[in-house]
Amino acid sequence: MKHARLADTRISEIRDSFGAQTLMQTFGAELREVTPGQVEITAPILPGFLQQHGFAHAGLTFSVGDSAAGYAALTLMPEGADVLTAEMKINLLAPASGERLIATGKVIKPGRRLFVVGAEVAVEKEGTLTPVALLQGTMVPT
Amino acid sequence: MKHARLADTRISEIRDSFGAQTLMQTFGAELREVTPGQVEITAPILPGFLQQHGFAHAGLTFSVGDSAAGYAALTLMPEGADVLTAEMKINLLAPASGERLIATGKVIKPGRRLFVVGAEVAVEKEGTLTPVALLQGTMVPT
Amino acid sequence: MKHARLADTRISEIRDSFGAQTLMQTFGAELREVTPGQVEITAPILPGFLQQHGFAHAGLTFSVGDSAAGYAALTLMPEGADVLTAEMKINLLAPASGERLIATGKVIKPGRRLFVVGAEVAVEKEGTLTPVALLQGTMVPT
Amino acid sequence: MKHARLADTRISEIRDSFGAQTLMQTFGAELREVTPGQVEITAPILPGFLQQHGFAHAGLTFSVGDSAAGYAALTLMPEGADVLTAEMKINLLAPASGERLIATGKVIKPGRRLFVVGAEVAVEKEGTLTPVALLQGTMVPT
Repeated sequence: MKHARLADTRISEIRDSFGAQTLMQTFGAELREVTPGQVEITAPILPGFLQQHGFAHAGLTFSVGDSAAGYAALTLMPEGADVLTAEMKINLLAPASGERLIATGKVIKPGRRLFVVGAEVAVEKEGTLTPVALLQGTMVPT
Repeated sequence: MKHARLADTRISEIRDSFGAQTLMQTFGAELREVTPGQVEITAPILPGFLQQHGFAHAGLTFSVGDSAAGYAALTLMPEGADVLTAEMKINLLAPASGERLIATGKVIKPGRRLFVVGAEVAVEKEGTLTPVALLQGTMVPT
Repeated sequence: MKHARLADTRISEIRDSFGAQTLMQTFGAELREVTPGQVEITAPILPGFLQQHGFAHAGLTFSVGDSAAGYAALTLMPEGADVLTAEMKINLLAPASGERLIATGKVIKPGRRLFVVGAEVAVEKEGTLTPVALLQGTMVPT
Repeated sequence: MKHARLADTRISEIRDSFGAQTLMQTFGAELREVTPGQVEITAPILPGFLQQHGFAHAGLTFSVGDSAAGYAALTLMPEGADVLTAEMKINLLAPASGERLIATGKVIKPGRRLFVVGAEVAVEKEGTLTPVALLQGTMVPT
């Protein structure tokens, strides 16, 4: 899974794709680290993204985890390729209370037709990171 | 899974809980049908909730499916109970393009400690419904 | 998902494939109903297939559910095609105690590259059927 | 997740429970490493446990992965506790061809009511290990 680095054009393509995901913009999410097979996305936990107890909604946690996993897959696909989520499973580990979510997506197994991917989502609160969710799923190149 | 009907106080509790999910408000989601073991939630597919090709983001689809499944579980829990998603899996069946998502959550197996739940999400486009996702997961009463 | 019926050659192909799954033979499993998009497999709950409390092992339940889902997908694939499980999720609904398991696999969404499938597994005990597991997953044609 | 070591009585309890899983005996599976939060199970890939192409059946792979994950959870439960699989998801990474499967189960997040667990399954062939499956699921103490 180790590759020297991504071509600038590929990183550019990935950032453009992320920029076109309006839900990520609505969430104020940012694409941080983009390396071959791994991508980090952060999103603030704002007042409009909560569940009934004031924790981050599982839908927010899923969204950033799914996007991180999808873009991790895209880093290992050929230039011009695009990616769709075929299926994704999330186990929630703890309620997410804090300033922001940090999702790290990883390619577990690349393939011609299917990519198995995973993502870990942590919450940052006053400088401390706590894992809140683990995702495992399948991406398909399109 | 058939119960005569829900007490008005229980329906009221559930609507209050849904109303406290600010992510559902941000999405413009509405809690429609609330019957014992089944709940329907709809959400418009607005310009701010899309993925890079203009389809509804999987995160939106997941969010309404997860909430529908969770509130379906809550309808069968004792008064005063609350519900958390333990885990949820989503299989995406087709890209979601249309005016709105309609998520139908159902209790598959209630339990004292765990509820197995499911949800179907369809997209409505010019009066036609097309299934776009199927969810299966576990809710825990709290 | 409705098709008139399967060609005899296709049913024959499917039965041959099932017959070549030695694990199904080890389990004493039988391929029952084979219709377009749906397959039923039964397996006796024998003393050698249990978990630590004398219930059917989740591995047995998974195996028959996964095979039923896979062959359901195969019924809708072109002649000569074969099928592999890409991923499968099982929720266990109740401990399985009884004479045999009955797994009903169904195609939820056929596709060129991926088939979304499901399976329900029930236990039969003295003539009564009780649901014990629900599976949801993805099959790929090969 | 680091604990000094397991009490001998606890290891003994776990080995007794594994020994009572007759499916593991049928599969010729062995409980190897048992440390706090992690368990390794191996099983030979014998002629009776295959799918239609001569690879290990997904049901065998699932069974050893599920058992490894379950016993990993049990290592962190109080003495006298028992464990049941609530749900488990498996992504298959590659066809399993070789002499034996090696499943490593791990606790991802222990809890009072739910344990989130994972397992990796590899195939050993002529001294080389290849990952063939990744599992993620939920165990409940009983």
